[in-house]
Amino acid sequence: MKVGFVGIGAMGHAMAQRLLDGGHDLVIWNRTRSRADDLVARGAILADTPADVARQVRIVFSMMFDDASTEQAVFGAEGIALSLARGAIHVCCATLSLAQARRLRDGHAGREQIYVGATVLGRPPAAAAGELFVITAGEDEALKRVHPLLECFGARIFDAGRDPVQATLVKLSLNFMIYSTIEQMAEVFALNEKAGIDPHTIFAIMTNTFYTAPVHRNYGKLMVAHEYDHPGAPPVTLGLKDMKMFLDAGGEYDVPLPYASVVRDRLLSAISAGDANRDFVVLMERARQDSGLK
Amino acid sequence: MKVGFVGIGAMGHAMAQRLLDGGHDLVIWNRTRSRADDLVARGAILADTPADVARQVRIVFSMMFDDASTEQAVFGAEGIALSLARGAIHVCCATLSLAQARRLRDGHAGREQIYVGATVLGRPPAAAAGELFVITAGEDEALKRVHPLLECFGARIFDAGRDPVQATLVKLSLNFMIYSTIEQMAEVFALNEKAGIDPHTIFAIMTNTFYTAPVHRNYGKLMVAHEYDHPGAPPVTLGLKDMKMFLDAGGEYDVPLPYASVVRDRLLSAISAGDANRDFVVLMERARQDSGLK
Amino acid sequence: MKVGFVGIGAMGHAMAQRLLDGGHDLVIWNRTRSRADDLVARGAILADTPADVARQVRIVFSMMFDDASTEQAVFGAEGIALSLARGAIHVCCATLSLAQARRLRDGHAGREQIYVGATVLGRPPAAAAGELFVITAGEDEALKRVHPLLECFGARIFDAGRDPVQATLVKLSLNFMIYSTIEQMAEVFALNEKAGIDPHTIFAIMTNTFYTAPVHRNYGKLMVAHEYDHPGAPPVTLGLKDMKMFLDAGGEYDVPLPYASVVRDRLLSAISAGDANRDFVVLMERARQDSGLK
Amino acid sequence: MKVGFVGIGAMGHAMAQRLLDGGHDLVIWNRTRSRADDLVARGAILADTPADVARQVRIVFSMMFDDASTEQAVFGAEGIALSLARGAIHVCCATLSLAQARRLRDGHAGREQIYVGATVLGRPPAAAAGELFVITAGEDEALKRVHPLLECFGARIFDAGRDPVQATLVKLSLNFMIYSTIEQMAEVFALNEKAGIDPHTIFAIMTNTFYTAPVHRNYGKLMVAHEYDHPGAPPVTLGLKDMKMFLDAGGEYDVPLPYASVVRDRLLSAISAGDANRDFVVLMERARQDSGLK
Repeated sequence: MKVGFVGIGAMGHAMAQRLLDGGHDLVIWNRTRSRADDLVARGAILADTPADVARQVRIVFSMMFDDASTEQAVFGAEGIALSLARGAIHVCCATLSLAQARRLRDGHAGREQIYVGATVLGRPPAAAAGELFVITAGEDEALKRVHPLLECFGARIFDAGRDPVQATLVKLSLNFMIYSTIEQMAEVFALNEKAGIDPHTIFAIMTNTFYTAPVHRNYGKLMVAHEYDHPGAPPVTLGLKDMKMFLDAGGEYDVPLPYASVVRDRLLSAISAGDANRDFVVLMERARQDSGLK
Repeated sequence: MKVGFVGIGAMGHAMAQRLLDGGHDLVIWNRTRSRADDLVARGAILADTPADVARQVRIVFSMMFDDASTEQAVFGAEGIALSLARGAIHVCCATLSLAQARRLRDGHAGREQIYVGATVLGRPPAAAAGELFVITAGEDEALKRVHPLLECFGARIFDAGRDPVQATLVKLSLNFMIYSTIEQMAEVFALNEKAGIDPHTIFAIMTNTFYTAPVHRNYGKLMVAHEYDHPGAPPVTLGLKDMKMFLDAGGEYDVPLPYASVVRDRLLSAISAGDANRDFVVLMERARQDSGLK
Repeated sequence: MKVGFVGIGAMGHAMAQRLLDGGHDLVIWNRTRSRADDLVARGAILADTPADVARQVRIVFSMMFDDASTEQAVFGAEGIALSLARGAIHVCCATLSLAQARRLRDGHAGREQIYVGATVLGRPPAAAAGELFVITAGEDEALKRVHPLLECFGARIFDAGRDPVQATLVKLSLNFMIYSTIEQMAEVFALNEKAGIDPHTIFAIMTNTFYTAPVHRNYGKLMVAHEYDHPGAPPVTLGLKDMKMFLDAGGEYDVPLPYASVVRDRLLSAISAGDANRDFVVLMERARQDSGLK
Repeated sequence: MKVGFVGIGAMGHAMAQRLLDGGHDLVIWNRTRSRADDLVARGAILADTPADVARQVRIVFSMMFDDASTEQAVFGAEGIALSLARGAIHVCCATLSLAQARRLRDGHAGREQIYVGATVLGRPPAAAAGELFVITAGEDEALKRVHPLLECFGARIFDAGRDPVQATLVKLSLNFMIYSTIEQMAEVFALNEKAGIDPHTIFAIMTNTFYTAPVHRNYGKLMVAHEYDHPGAPPVTLGLKDMKMFLDAGGEYDVPLPYASVVRDRLLSAISAGDANRDFVVLMERARQDSGLK
């Protein structure tokens, strides 16, 4: 199938590659054109604008960095919405605010285009291996059409509902669970360390008893190793962006989220401490700082 | 081996049974004597006091309900410490405060008795199946001596350190992780429910992606089912006791624990709402209440 | 002096009246024209648009409801900025977000117009009596020019700095102190009530010892009387708007604000409880609800 | 009247002096006898034990440091309760936990002695000037008897109820209001400082508008001056003791106290930062630290 892909960052690139691997014809666009060189070498067509991509396909994916870049790529002067055909589908995979997801939904609906939310869990290497988790929401018929494409990069595909905005809220919620698990473990590690118990010890106990999930193992491992500067680490600023969107969602639905506020404060404090660009697990160091451990 | 066991509540009973199954001779004591009938029928000797138990063995287990009952069973007028021989071992399995654990350690040391901390993770059915997790701390030599006994009920035995108090802190920490995971999921479920996403939906996504641990699956399942009144449910008051001990540990080591304070407030609020004796996962309902969902 | 005034709501009306009382000639604008009838009867000229006001004066005040209405009145198609002369002054009295205050500052600067921040503390009756507190920020020279006008409605005029945005931050901060004092007292009242001490009793002790400020007396009095529905009461939604702007300010400067987050959660919970339009002191009821007092 | 006074620390000494000034005959006791030299020089009789004091009077005051020292002075081997006559009164002025206040109430009642709670607000210089605030609770008749004595050091005397424990809860509550006001101002000062507004500026605005209470002026002044080491400063550890007792009171009545928990965390963090013995207003520095201001 001929498929569009707008936004070839680290994640988008891996996803696009998987679509190529799956035998699909790609029309792609990226702000930095050189990022697409290898895909072009493999047969992808490089378009000049998101609108050019959308004009050539019935299904276009987008994976932009944030609300603003998505807004620009979709509703900007050369955006997807400008040329996407009636009844054609825009599958948005980015992590957005609810407000932005609604703008996409309503903007596309006003043009009789179809918007599908398909947020993803996992990092670029997982995408490259076809092992992402994909959370979809949208019209049944549209989901059926995009399903075979999502399977190119997604190991499991979940259905969150008929309103595409729901894929966004579920994604924000699951991201919150990452940060709050980090804070939870940070409090445990700080207290145990101060009481003379090596965090490695309790980490080992934890992850061999009831706390065996990837969220425990993967982040806890970085925490006890104080490993905050590895290549590709998602930075504190990304965490703050996520938490802001999650708290804003709470604000829209009048839902108090006390844990989320604690996480937000930790992330702000991490930035104030100069750690803005380190892996967000560095919020561990705020618990240690508050406990006199550094 | 001839082994003592003081405190045959639901958990202690299951553990004692496993020791019998393992071929050991038991001398037991319980405040309510009839709780021990079936063990006696299987050959266990019922003593009149904890001191009577301790007099007859080189290793005595205790599994009392809390600090006060442990203090009484160990240092009371007819307590274990009164008659336990020099060099004999008291293996305490209860979840205690750090202060109480230290009193045990120091009180036994002053009598040249040996104190081993061996806190357990899991509920009575797990104990009965020999599938507890056991967290030990104490002198190497003593741990070696009790290890074969712990294996009767423990599927895995972890070493938390040489100071028996460490087994207590690790246990309190892991319990905190249960409550804080419940709060974390409660915030997620409340927000999603209010936004029109069935908590079952996000629970299913959660537990099939990065949040696959027993702590997610077991408690989350009860939460989305609003199942708070099943037999044997650990009550809110137990949760509050645990959180008080965890926060007191933070107080002793000058470690701020903001998440723990949020949990404490939820548990207090649950009690004020009349839910003191329901499963502590009912704190889910506080998040729902605050969101106008009930 | 001939002075402009844009936005004749309850507060703006009282301020405009004081300017008339002070012998100034007013050119005014309001979305709902009839609100200005009595001012016109006293000689004020009613303009068709904010731009019409600004065209006729060297100093124009604005007192709009929020960011959006201020943005529209200043930079909209018929806004103040369109016609305000170079070197003329816009004195903005509304409570805005820092982001909006910066837009005003920069937008006016780009047109060589002068922006003065002059936020006010107090309610309409205080304005009518000339007893507001005014917090100014801006260029020295401009402040000198507007000072005699501010004295028409302000009993005291404070200088917060040379950057007009500073008047906004100080105002947001002082508003936060209102809400956080309410929460503080709510926790005290709830605990004392539950322990059998009438909140009136501790309120009387409080306000006759170290807690004698208007912020204690005025809000505490409403709290112990459970008086949440009096005419002109500032609603929970207003409080939430303020707290959002304050927390966003923290977000911009990477300053954690744990108390502010607690207040935000209380306000959200009040809205979920159906109290959106009651006096924001109703957050007292959230503390009572959490304590089982209602 | 012949009056007993047990506990001549800085505060007790000033109060005792005022009783002497009022023409009363004092029988006093203090652990460190030399603290009483000047009082003895003025005619006070120095007793060997609290029991010796109580034996000689119908009204005995106590002003010990904490729960433990009060327990010892009242119910210890040579304690007040041992020899206080039936119908005689013990007026306890110390800041205690509710649990300790109840022990006093019930212990005295069991001996047909009368217990009056008379907690005090103010520091030693205020006591020396007769300007304390006194919060009383107890039987009407007993309060009448002690009233003239309380007037020796109290500028105002408040009635909190018939149960002496109520004087304790009110005192704990008012102390909480000190700490929470400090945290509230700390958040404001940190944010404003980071935004380029000198805390002195907003402090001046605050204390000349709606935030004019002693609690604002006295503590705020120390905060903006970073003055944490003046002689007689009440230390962080004292603050932590107060907050623990307040939170425990919340625990007894199932009242969540989220602000109190934030304060507790700040105080713990201050101790971890090495500030245990500095004026508790140093918690200001935790807000600054979290904001990258130091």
